[in-house]
Amino acid sequence: MTDATSIVLASRPKGTPSQDNFRQETHALPAPGDGEILVRVIWLSLDPYMRGRMDDAKSYAAPVELDAVMEGGVVGEVLESRAEGLAVGDIVTGSLGWTTHAVARADAVRKIDDPVAPLSTYLGVLGMPGLTAWVGLNKVIEMQQGETVLISAATGAVGGLAGQLAKAKGLRAVGVAGGADKCAFATDTLGYDACLDHRATDAATLRDQIGKAAPDGIDGYFENVGGKTLEAVLPNMAMNGRIAVCGMIAWYNGKGIDEAMPLPAVWRTILTQRLRVQGFLAPDHFHRFPEFIGEVGPLVRDGRIAVREDVAEGLDSAPGKFLEMLEGGNFGKTLVWVGDDP
Amino acid sequence: MTDATSIVLASRPKGTPSQDNFRQETHALPAPGDGEILVRVIWLSLDPYMRGRMDDAKSYAAPVELDAVMEGGVVGEVLESRAEGLAVGDIVTGSLGWTTHAVARADAVRKIDDPVAPLSTYLGVLGMPGLTAWVGLNKVIEMQQGETVLISAATGAVGGLAGQLAKAKGLRAVGVAGGADKCAFATDTLGYDACLDHRATDAATLRDQIGKAAPDGIDGYFENVGGKTLEAVLPNMAMNGRIAVCGMIAWYNGKGIDEAMPLPAVWRTILTQRLRVQGFLAPDHFHRFPEFIGEVGPLVRDGRIAVREDVAEGLDSAPGKFLEMLEGGNFGKTLVWVGDDP
Repeated sequence: MTDATSIVLASRPKGTPSQDNFRQETHALPAPGDGEILVRVIWLSLDPYMRGRMDDAKSYAAPVELDAVMEGGVVGEVLESRAEGLAVGDIVTGSLGWTTHAVARADAVRKIDDPVAPLSTYLGVLGMPGLTAWVGLNKVIEMQQGETVLISAATGAVGGLAGQLAKAKGLRAVGVAGGADKCAFATDTLGYDACLDHRATDAATLRDQIGKAAPDGIDGYFENVGGKTLEAVLPNMAMNGRIAVCGMIAWYNGKGIDEAMPLPAVWRTILTQRLRVQGFLAPDHFHRFPEFIGEVGPLVRDGRIAVREDVAEGLDSAPGKFLEMLEGGNFGKTLVWVGDDP
Repeated sequence: MTDATSIVLASRPKGTPSQDNFRQETHALPAPGDGEILVRVIWLSLDPYMRGRMDDAKSYAAPVELDAVMEGGVVGEVLESRAEGLAVGDIVTGSLGWTTHAVARADAVRKIDDPVAPLSTYLGVLGMPGLTAWVGLNKVIEMQQGETVLISAATGAVGGLAGQLAKAKGLRAVGVAGGADKCAFATDTLGYDACLDHRATDAATLRDQIGKAAPDGIDGYFENVGGKTLEAVLPNMAMNGRIAVCGMIAWYNGKGIDEAMPLPAVWRTILTQRLRVQGFLAPDHFHRFPEFIGEVGPLVRDGRIAVREDVAEGLDSAPGKFLEMLEGGNFGKTLVWVGDDP
């Protein structure tokens, strides 16, 4: 018998979540059945989409049930296996939740063979956030050499890779991030041509700053945040521009919803500029993992992609770290280090 | 010397336009110069986009200048020609304005050879509105057999053809129109599977009615109106649905803009349903005219497309008819009969 310590959803937040919405529990796991494995978690990923799972609202995925383990991607080590193709000691990744240990069906995980980079990157640049950045630029925005892209949350798990991929393809990349330190990192380390600090300004000024940083307009907007940034970007969209709607963290806690830009103005811009606005979610594109890894894996292996991680230690730090991330307090890919590398 | 009687823009409207914004004038035309023709107008088209041209605001086309002739598409007869390829008696179409006569460069018009249907249809189902319907369904929504489309302004110049083209391709077509008579025409004559009267209900009820008329959701929304209809359609959009943003007449006069649906809710639907929202304008697709005419021309010639026109007689009736159309008072393609057929 193995004990698992987990973070469960204790109650649903109204607006901004708090520590009270989470509860830590320890319980004995059943032994793995046929086709199942027992996994020890090494890394837990914290991502903005998890905020949506805390609400009991219709969304693209079912909400986390009350008293159930919070949803989350992990990298872990197989401790026991009753599944073909997976052996003790194998490293796997999958959505096993905020927990130290889990029993899972083998088809719920993906084996990581011969990792080309530290295991944590399989939750970041080589995991779902990385796939999201790559799909957003290549399949939704369909970036073309010589174009200008604007990437919000420019140093985050998704944005940080998106900016570097855009530069690698020869585009002009403008970032928007929260804070002077993040903006310096965006231009100095990630290679953005410019980065604007949305915390230092209002929407109208940000709009003018974007206009100066992208004098020919924005051909592709990688939308991770909504809110004030969206309001500042829209009037700067170039003719035939594309907006990849990937997230809207600024609105997740309900703030600013009433003051948001009126819909008719947005609809008018879509029409007059012939914009294409497209929502997309990484899980719809999991079949593209081989193509994505084939292209981005070597870049990461050779150190040509800068990786910045913001790590909290110990599962019990997950709720606090998650709340911090929702307010933009993270700097780079947010992770929880749950247990030692093998 | 030929006298032309024209309607000019006398002043810019604030909100809903009125007769005061227009003025009728008669002036002598210059003789056509090299490469020019003199045209006598037979039919003038009235279209919602003209409302945008009355404002002095940045849009996809320059505004009409004060005291200049109102912009508009016409069909007319060549009275004099100093241009190669055009002879006296030829029938041409082009954007010559709200006028009885005009001198124009030959490359500003398109010659109509061997018309397959009455000349007025070259401003409707075989003109820009028809091209708009065809492009919206085929190139923007990319309709597929078995899908469901919803078409607002279902009996208008664009919507009336869009519904019939969707049915011809084997889709389920749901219309939204203003009034019981228009809805009866939509189902009985145009072949819509269902039509909902937005004047008879509020947005919430309309939303539920759409849900019943499209039980599998809306795959393609042909957006001509914005406003309450958009609000009622959005929650009914199917996964991977497409919205072709073609117009938003409900908002053109500034009404209801403050009460419009909040942007965050729209953005969330785009994300969770993976929608593609795309603005488009017919002039970007003029190169598709031959393909469009090749497909739709024979349908019109053979009487397989129902054509309904709402005709005012005499150029001086144009302002009043235009104002009526903006309020949805037209029924079918709005036209002004300016002068006799040749």
